[in-house]
Amino acid sequence: MLKGLSRAGLGDIGSDERFIELAGQYGFDAVDIDARGLIERNGVEGAKELLQRSNVVIGSIGLSVEWRQSESVFLDGLPKLTEAAAAAAALGCTACCTYILPSTDHKPAAFMAQATKRMRIAAEILGAYGIRLGLEFVGPHHLRTAWKNPFIWTMEETLDWADAIGRPNVGLLFDVYHWYTNEGTLDDIRALKPEQIVHVHINDAPDVKIEDALDNGRLYPGEGVIDLAGALGALQSIGYKGVVAQEILSKSAPEGSPEQLLQRSKAGFDKVFAAAGL
Amino acid sequence: MLKGLSRAGLGDIGSDERFIELAGQYGFDAVDIDARGLIERNGVEGAKELLQRSNVVIGSIGLSVEWRQSESVFLDGLPKLTEAAAAAAALGCTACCTYILPSTDHKPAAFMAQATKRMRIAAEILGAYGIRLGLEFVGPHHLRTAWKNPFIWTMEETLDWADAIGRPNVGLLFDVYHWYTNEGTLDDIRALKPEQIVHVHINDAPDVKIEDALDNGRLYPGEGVIDLAGALGALQSIGYKGVVAQEILSKSAPEGSPEQLLQRSKAGFDKVFAAAGL
Amino acid sequence: MLKGLSRAGLGDIGSDERFIELAGQYGFDAVDIDARGLIERNGVEGAKELLQRSNVVIGSIGLSVEWRQSESVFLDGLPKLTEAAAAAAALGCTACCTYILPSTDHKPAAFMAQATKRMRIAAEILGAYGIRLGLEFVGPHHLRTAWKNPFIWTMEETLDWADAIGRPNVGLLFDVYHWYTNEGTLDDIRALKPEQIVHVHINDAPDVKIEDALDNGRLYPGEGVIDLAGALGALQSIGYKGVVAQEILSKSAPEGSPEQLLQRSKAGFDKVFAAAGL
Amino acid sequence: MLKGLSRAGLGDIGSDERFIELAGQYGFDAVDIDARGLIERNGVEGAKELLQRSNVVIGSIGLSVEWRQSESVFLDGLPKLTEAAAAAAALGCTACCTYILPSTDHKPAAFMAQATKRMRIAAEILGAYGIRLGLEFVGPHHLRTAWKNPFIWTMEETLDWADAIGRPNVGLLFDVYHWYTNEGTLDDIRALKPEQIVHVHINDAPDVKIEDALDNGRLYPGEGVIDLAGALGALQSIGYKGVVAQEILSKSAPEGSPEQLLQRSKAGFDKVFAAAGL
Repeated sequence: MLKGLSRAGLGDIGSDERFIELAGQYGFDAVDIDARGLIERNGVEGAKELLQRSNVVIGSIGLSVEWRQSESVFLDGLPKLTEAAAAAAALGCTACCTYILPSTDHKPAAFMAQATKRMRIAAEILGAYGIRLGLEFVGPHHLRTAWKNPFIWTMEETLDWADAIGRPNVGLLFDVYHWYTNEGTLDDIRALKPEQIVHVHINDAPDVKIEDALDNGRLYPGEGVIDLAGALGALQSIGYKGVVAQEILSKSAPEGSPEQLLQRSKAGFDKVFAAAGL
Repeated sequence: MLKGLSRAGLGDIGSDERFIELAGQYGFDAVDIDARGLIERNGVEGAKELLQRSNVVIGSIGLSVEWRQSESVFLDGLPKLTEAAAAAAALGCTACCTYILPSTDHKPAAFMAQATKRMRIAAEILGAYGIRLGLEFVGPHHLRTAWKNPFIWTMEETLDWADAIGRPNVGLLFDVYHWYTNEGTLDDIRALKPEQIVHVHINDAPDVKIEDALDNGRLYPGEGVIDLAGALGALQSIGYKGVVAQEILSKSAPEGSPEQLLQRSKAGFDKVFAAAGL
Repeated sequence: MLKGLSRAGLGDIGSDERFIELAGQYGFDAVDIDARGLIERNGVEGAKELLQRSNVVIGSIGLSVEWRQSESVFLDGLPKLTEAAAAAAALGCTACCTYILPSTDHKPAAFMAQATKRMRIAAEILGAYGIRLGLEFVGPHHLRTAWKNPFIWTMEETLDWADAIGRPNVGLLFDVYHWYTNEGTLDDIRALKPEQIVHVHINDAPDVKIEDALDNGRLYPGEGVIDLAGALGALQSIGYKGVVAQEILSKSAPEGSPEQLLQRSKAGFDKVFAAAGL
Repeated sequence: MLKGLSRAGLGDIGSDERFIELAGQYGFDAVDIDARGLIERNGVEGAKELLQRSNVVIGSIGLSVEWRQSESVFLDGLPKLTEAAAAAAALGCTACCTYILPSTDHKPAAFMAQATKRMRIAAEILGAYGIRLGLEFVGPHHLRTAWKNPFIWTMEETLDWADAIGRPNVGLLFDVYHWYTNEGTLDDIRALKPEQIVHVHINDAPDVKIEDALDNGRLYPGEGVIDLAGALGALQSIGYKGVVAQEILSKSAPEGSPEQLLQRSKAGFDKVFAAAGL
């Protein structure tokens, strides 16, 4: 597995170029950034060199097209999605992810039908470039009622949705926080095939009742109560070899310089990877 | 357009063989029956002869596989669906229909995802045999709250669902009662392409408030308040050439012999088709 | 049916803006042009006004992505295809067409597999914007051996290919010249459903043996031996309501000014439409 | 990886029940048999017990539907395919395989289009039951000209075809003999993702020129010149954990009793697995 970083949890780390450099310095293998922007600023060859110099790959890009609003907004974003996919492919990135809010103001079944079609289109475009689409189920209980109607939030529902979308390149963004807030088990992970997982997010939860764990109340790996050693071990046991990227969503910016936060992140990864025997 | 009949509204009309014969006698062009049963009892050639003798075609078969319950129940029904599709194709039938209850005890978005996958499989099997799958949206207001959660009930939602299913052979069963209870307009019909319509149901509504029109409170064509002449004219104007089949759902069995009910149905069709200038 | 024009057969007619204006002046309803270019030069609103002023719609855009060469060339063209689709949709155009050379230097089955995947991706992108993809089978016999290996050239093979591509928005560009050089019959046309036809090309053939009719040896409608009245009547009888666009491919530029050629085209359309009773 | 057997190479081993028993006795983990027949004779529970008693699973069933001939023959086989898929699933089998002849009397591109549609339908039915479809490319050179026109025979072409079919559950049956006769390299195997491989066939080739290796001239594993240790090592390195089943096609029946041939097979597996360090 590759140790990865997103910006969430690193404070104001600056440009993506700086982010890549620091990720490499602190021993991380992957960063989640905007491939297209990196190319626009550095050219394809320049971007490749930047990544190679720091021995870092792009773990995942975000799904740039807005699939949760009107049809016209969705369509407006498709040309940029095609360019984003081409850019990611040019830099060797094979994952693109989006999250699923667990409730919605739309009529849920009708929204699911619309979103399924939109995701199939997005997946077809990404798949043309060899990129997979990871769907992130979102577990925190408070979000299940944050909008009028329940949508979906479990791993099983999300796998069913991937089946409905029906393209071979659709799978999960597996975030341990959402697995934890869904009261997932290690056996749930072991039941997955590695190719069902497009990307992994790692972080930790405070020692509160599961139903009180907030989406933006996450801790650094190893600083909380989630069985991360177990989760990593289970991912390893099924043969997952992709990126495990830190994503620490928090109400207020974390204290400390980016370097201190990177050190803290590195320490967290080292601790939980070691605990998992990796 | 072909004038068609389902059993609903004809009382105890007896065997399908008798149904075919009577439909022909009363000038109808199509019947909605179980093609596979007809072949099992009469052989393919015998079944064809029966239909030809009465100058009647099969308008639509019902979707035999149960897609609303558990996965195992769905899978148990697939072999029979394949046989049903082969049987329908052998008799020249090109439509297979199912209805969508407008509310559900399932979590709606998750159920939509599951149902989308199941419908894609069913559509692929039917499509192999040149058969189209018609999805019937169900409009009566009381059914929208008959189960715990709202599902879908409008024409637009159903067309979106067909897009999500993503197979070329999926379209609408357009039932005028559901169009009426959705307060559909003639322009809504005129906005359809004829190939979006797999099958049409015709019947009428009592003179009650739309939100009080019951699913099983339907009248014979021409005996109620739906603008059937307008609807038929709109279907004609877009080039729909398929079957328009009567389906009269009612709380208690209609009074009169099958022959009397057929005569009443024929009179209704004659009236509304004439009013539409057809 | 709408009377349409492509540039082929009109000589050096100038800009698309001029083409639109002249098409309107000579009573044509549609032009096959590059929607994206028109918008780039005039803006969306300006382009719409140009079309409306001449009472002309865009019949079809050409498929801009190169699907016959290497995978990288194909992928390079996808962002532009997405933009082209958005542009066409903005101007109300719902058709995009490409032709299929009847022989190939590639290994035919392997090329068919690759091309099928590419067409599915293109169709998905076009379909997002409500645009259909028309596949033009190419009949002239000399082209069947112009490259090393036979590919496909019949209507039936092309419909099979559309089935293989598997998206609902894929159909035929039906060119009467290719139907004629395939020795197609009126019953072949009558066996089509109108929604299987995305676009129609009209032109005529010289009085030579069918196997000697050259792809670039086409005549203006009504000046040759093809039963255009029959073909148009058959298209009408099945309910085709789309564009019938002239495409006159010839070895050397036709003689006469654009205005003279437009007049000649108009006369040809008038003659064959009248002969078909349209 | 699981050590598996097909009947090819075991002489007249008798019933599937006897085959299962002997496979277990000689230390094999999997057999390639007809799941539906086993259930018809023993019931689902009886069949499961038979397999469990011998500690053997079903590696793969053969694709029962005939996809190489006419459309009507294909359609006639779909109901049985659905039943075969249900039977395989009931016994825990998740693979179904078919081979691709490298030449054809059909027009190759047209046949590829037809076959693509048929495979999509078959894959959708199998996928409903959680079963994957493995496509076996066939390498021996003499078969490339055994029918009029070349079709496909390389791994790359077959992966392209799987992409064209477009269902997530389609992959390769990787037969080392076909890899060898295609002059495949270990790096070709290492470039695969394990989920692209549905099933593996193992056997060996005589010491003749590659272009003279006959399809029915195969040897037992370890008795020929194929680098089986390398191939198995490469499969292991990418994480393939499925079945590796022996298939020895030969002109005349192999000499010896089934028990002797099983012993010979076991010795071959032991030798090459040991050489691969497995």
